[in-house]
Amino acid sequence: MTQVFINGARDELNVQEHDSLDPSVQELIRAAAEARKQAYCPYSNFAVGAALRTSDGSIYTGCNIENGAYAASICAERTAAVKAISEGKRDFVACAVVAQQDNGFTTPCGVCRQFLSEFVNGKDIPLYAAQPSNLPLRVLCTSVLQLLPNGFRFLNGK
Amino acid sequence: MTQVFINGARDELNVQEHDSLDPSVQELIRAAAEARKQAYCPYSNFAVGAALRTSDGSIYTGCNIENGAYAASICAERTAAVKAISEGKRDFVACAVVAQQDNGFTTPCGVCRQFLSEFVNGKDIPLYAAQPSNLPLRVLCTSVLQLLPNGFRFLNGK
Amino acid sequence: MTQVFINGARDELNVQEHDSLDPSVQELIRAAAEARKQAYCPYSNFAVGAALRTSDGSIYTGCNIENGAYAASICAERTAAVKAISEGKRDFVACAVVAQQDNGFTTPCGVCRQFLSEFVNGKDIPLYAAQPSNLPLRVLCTSVLQLLPNGFRFLNGK
Amino acid sequence: MTQVFINGARDELNVQEHDSLDPSVQELIRAAAEARKQAYCPYSNFAVGAALRTSDGSIYTGCNIENGAYAASICAERTAAVKAISEGKRDFVACAVVAQQDNGFTTPCGVCRQFLSEFVNGKDIPLYAAQPSNLPLRVLCTSVLQLLPNGFRFLNGK
Ligand SMILES: [Zn+2]
Ligand SMILES: [Zn+2]
Ligand SMILES: [Zn+2]
Ligand SMILES: [Zn+2]
Repeated sequence: MTQVFINGARDELNVQEHDSLDPSVQELIRAAAEARKQAYCPYSNFAVGAALRTSDGSIYTGCNIENGAYAASICAERTAAVKAISEGKRDFVACAVVAQQDNGFTTPCGVCRQFLSEFVNGKDIPLYAAQPSNLPLRVLCTSVLQLLPNGFRFLNGK
Repeated sequence: MTQVFINGARDELNVQEHDSLDPSVQELIRAAAEARKQAYCPYSNFAVGAALRTSDGSIYTGCNIENGAYAASICAERTAAVKAISEGKRDFVACAVVAQQDNGFTTPCGVCRQFLSEFVNGKDIPLYAAQPSNLPLRVLCTSVLQLLPNGFRFLNGK
Repeated sequence: MTQVFINGARDELNVQEHDSLDPSVQELIRAAAEARKQAYCPYSNFAVGAALRTSDGSIYTGCNIENGAYAASICAERTAAVKAISEGKRDFVACAVVAQQDNGFTTPCGVCRQFLSEFVNGKDIPLYAAQPSNLPLRVLCTSVLQLLPNGFRFLNGK
Repeated sequence: MTQVFINGARDELNVQEHDSLDPSVQELIRAAAEARKQAYCPYSNFAVGAALRTSDGSIYTGCNIENGAYAASICAERTAAVKAISEGKRDFVACAVVAQQDNGFTTPCGVCRQFLSEFVNGKDIPLYAAQPSNLPLRVLCTSVLQLLPNGFRFLNGK
């Protein structure tokens, strides 16, 4: 546990050395870094990659895909998620996000936190945020529910 | 060409018999209908499937995936598109959408039209909208640019 | 009627001199240009203003408001619309959009077309797109239904 | 401080009696409850109201406004926010949200948390979530940064 400032918010964050993480997590981070290369981000020039592991061990990856109408853009995390879900896989067991901002880790935006939280069923989804080029590579270890506390759910609706 | 009313808008629409369409288009529609089965739509109970063919002949499919926060939902067309784009395929040559509304064909929403239009490069993308259960199966034959005339593009931004 | 190219799409567009338009339309365009000054667009540096007139003669205005997570951005047209709707006014009779792109008129994005089309009840909404600085000022005269032909509506849902 | 379960997430939440809150907060909650009456929610039948106070003491209110294409819907919190911002007020000092779900408080969705966090400048924004009909009225007292810990910001982009 390390006390750090991330994007202006103070928190007890679990920042760990990449090499100390479970090999399956390291694999997920590598998959996210690789997916990042497909990013379509001509407006921001800010490439993001993501990877989701499902309960059967599969990895689904995504990148951010922007639109001239910014509101129609889709983030890397949601790209990875809809790929899995549309293949019948909704049981996510881990998520990795890779992007490069000098001021700290890039965490999922609120839209993606909301999207992923729909598929947290009883158990949380660990989430790993890494920077591709800051060595030695350090990883922010958090989770979907930690990132969206007291999340909005619409239970009347189902 | 048949003069019909679609969702309240009068237009000259090219509605054709399914069996008269090119076999590659029929294949795309079948792929969309199959993808529809994975829809996650507990709020609307309205399942949509989509399929995109890329210039190398591949087919990418998607379904709609809803969220308790409705604004975070992603449609079938965008699910299919981000799957292709995240695999490095941005050159779409045809799109099919399948859903069942009694009052007419289900066309892509404005968000999806905007999203797809980003990847219309010089040439248009034919789009086929079909209903899964109305026999004999008829198909609305249109295109992304027909559905988003004078589309918004942010050319300053690139 | 003038045949022009707008954002790469050829169409019969009704482009008119500003001074030839109805004074109420000129007033709406001025309101949109004024609202544009409040735009929050640090990411695109692309300011847009919009104005909606409701059936009681009121004008509601909006600007675009961006977010670091691009997908969470809201356009000028929707800003104007939610202001009116949240005040109990849903009966729109005209819309104006003002922005500056050198290559042509800035029309509403697909998200906004979809949003506005929800409130087209039986009759269409005229839409005027103007550039603030190209003199003599010319205005693209179109409508919500022209910009979203065969629009998506979810009639099962109500 | 009370230990409660909200939407499945365990947390130390500050749930207080309505009558014990500062009169300015009570006024904000009443404004949100009043704004809720304008909700346009034919798809979910789930009405939400929101109110934002700006540093000059003004209150801006909003309701949720849905769309047949769910993704194009806009929540009450964002409606209130864009109203203020488009009037030149970006300095929010408090936010209230009012809705009725039997299983707990209705908090802002991730999209709204992301949207509001853009306007947290150095200081946090207190946020009050209330249910209109559960008496004696209790209020969840939290904040934008508590609801979006380690929030995504795109600092390269400005
Ligand atoms: Zn995101
Ligand atoms: Zn759509
Ligand atoms: Zn727009
Ligand atoms: Zn929301």
